[in-house]
Amino acid sequence: MKGLWLENNQLQLRTDISIPEPPSTEALVRVLYAGICNTDLELKRGYYSYTGILGHEFVGVVEQGPEYLVNQRVVGEINAVCGHCRFCRTGQPTHCENRTVLGIVNRHGAFADYLCLPVENLHPVPDNVPSEVATFTEPLAAALEIQQQVALGVNDRVLVVGDGKLGQLVAQTLALTGCELLVVGRHREKLANLEARGIKTGLAEAVTDRAFDISVECTGNPEGFAIARRALRPRGTLVLKSTYAGNISIDASSLVVDEITLIGSRCGPFPAALQLLATGQVDVQPLIHARYPLSEGLFAFELAQRRGVLKVLLEIS
Amino acid sequence: MKGLWLENNQLQLRTDISIPEPPSTEALVRVLYAGICNTDLELKRGYYSYTGILGHEFVGVVEQGPEYLVNQRVVGEINAVCGHCRFCRTGQPTHCENRTVLGIVNRHGAFADYLCLPVENLHPVPDNVPSEVATFTEPLAAALEIQQQVALGVNDRVLVVGDGKLGQLVAQTLALTGCELLVVGRHREKLANLEARGIKTGLAEAVTDRAFDISVECTGNPEGFAIARRALRPRGTLVLKSTYAGNISIDASSLVVDEITLIGSRCGPFPAALQLLATGQVDVQPLIHARYPLSEGLFAFELAQRRGVLKVLLEIS
Repeated sequence: MKGLWLENNQLQLRTDISIPEPPSTEALVRVLYAGICNTDLELKRGYYSYTGILGHEFVGVVEQGPEYLVNQRVVGEINAVCGHCRFCRTGQPTHCENRTVLGIVNRHGAFADYLCLPVENLHPVPDNVPSEVATFTEPLAAALEIQQQVALGVNDRVLVVGDGKLGQLVAQTLALTGCELLVVGRHREKLANLEARGIKTGLAEAVTDRAFDISVECTGNPEGFAIARRALRPRGTLVLKSTYAGNISIDASSLVVDEITLIGSRCGPFPAALQLLATGQVDVQPLIHARYPLSEGLFAFELAQRRGVLKVLLEIS
Repeated sequence: MKGLWLENNQLQLRTDISIPEPPSTEALVRVLYAGICNTDLELKRGYYSYTGILGHEFVGVVEQGPEYLVNQRVVGEINAVCGHCRFCRTGQPTHCENRTVLGIVNRHGAFADYLCLPVENLHPVPDNVPSEVATFTEPLAAALEIQQQVALGVNDRVLVVGDGKLGQLVAQTLALTGCELLVVGRHREKLANLEARGIKTGLAEAVTDRAFDISVECTGNPEGFAIARRALRPRGTLVLKSTYAGNISIDASSLVVDEITLIGSRCGPFPAALQLLATGQVDVQPLIHARYPLSEGLFAFELAQRRGVLKVLLEIS
């Protein structure tokens, strides 16, 4: 089968990969669409060590697995877990100590004709959700993780820093809470997507210092972090939603003086994300920048790295 | 009157300072004892801009003020607040936007014969608490702030990093929660103070990675931060209790992947601290390294900066 293979920071399109044979607890999924995420770009840049097929945002059709799933369209949670470590036993499987992670840690990913995942990771996609829309389930679930970690109400002033793929999903999910929301970014056309949904937006210069209860950093760069930090009132909460290239330098004393909370946020609930897509409460269509077949995957990757480009999808089968 | 005056990073013993005249809402306090804190050392090193009399840990006797307080021994909360900003109105006066802070921000401090503070800041000291013990009320209250911010139970594995003045107070207060506590530091004789109270201690090398639910950083140096960070399990909480010289460099991506919470922690509740001192549940006597008269204040400061020295007290009147 074909697949986008990462090795020594080099991405190549291979056509000689064997179709995987799922163990008895896993299903074989034929991939329909897959999305290129910033984490994929960071893996390619070598921020994390990984060799194998990239990709973790996908929708596909089950070809082998339990009868109730065969021929179903599915999306899949990316952490394949052991089921018996202290995190699995305490309802925190995304932190399983023995996990593999689709296209990220010790498990071949979704930029290929086929992938395998544990049966328990798979969620059928409601019929009314188009496949390219369903590809956003994983990042949308990650956006929803914020609300699992931080209590948000209509009286909270919330700032989202970043108008990229992740910032747009985060903004749409936060808007549903009724909080007082502002999204800042650098791209007027991306911010216009959100304005069209009634979400208040602005440029970074529009951010008033010490005015927000909660800020969510979705840029993955130190400038975005600085904006998210200075926007917070004392005792405010800064949610780190992006990963960063290397370390960032922070004024820890000011965190102490202002008693700021910083919280890292990663994978979230798939069922809630699928429901938001099925009911149309979140609209991902404006986030799709382009679609390319897997055979043009290397070009799609180049495109996805360009400034201002939103989601690039791979149409696989 | 005499006072230790900081100006342009130079500390001097002045004898020509006028005794302050309290405004009608404030009391005049004759200082009995004052304690030298790491923040004082940092102010002297120029980490924050301040000119005036240093010092914020004290016990004294009210000489002018409301009748019920005159001749009472008192300790005092260090933030003098406006009463009408958004933080004062929402029960968070330590974050008052217009505050002055005793010996730290725009208000002369306690290393002098007299000081002034708002009447509402003063707390009478129970008769059975010796004056030099009462001097620890302010840092003990700061230690108790942790429990106002983080829920702690008997099942929590808690690590305190640092065996200095602050670490010792933090450790003693955390031990009262019944949590599973380990304190690590570099000074066997300081750790012995805690061992004598039944608190488990060790050297930093003894810390198991990813084993603790909560870690409290009490060293104020990047090495201490690194230990507190690596000790945490995924979804653990790192409490920043010390201030730092300049910025620290953190691996923000690992905070995201492990969904770590960082929380800054500053001033805490005086009444609870006084009660712990009055009931003897916290023992501060072993923390007193030396006592010097104010006239030897400059030497006392030099001593307080030396590695391994715990609390240096100024006996003022």
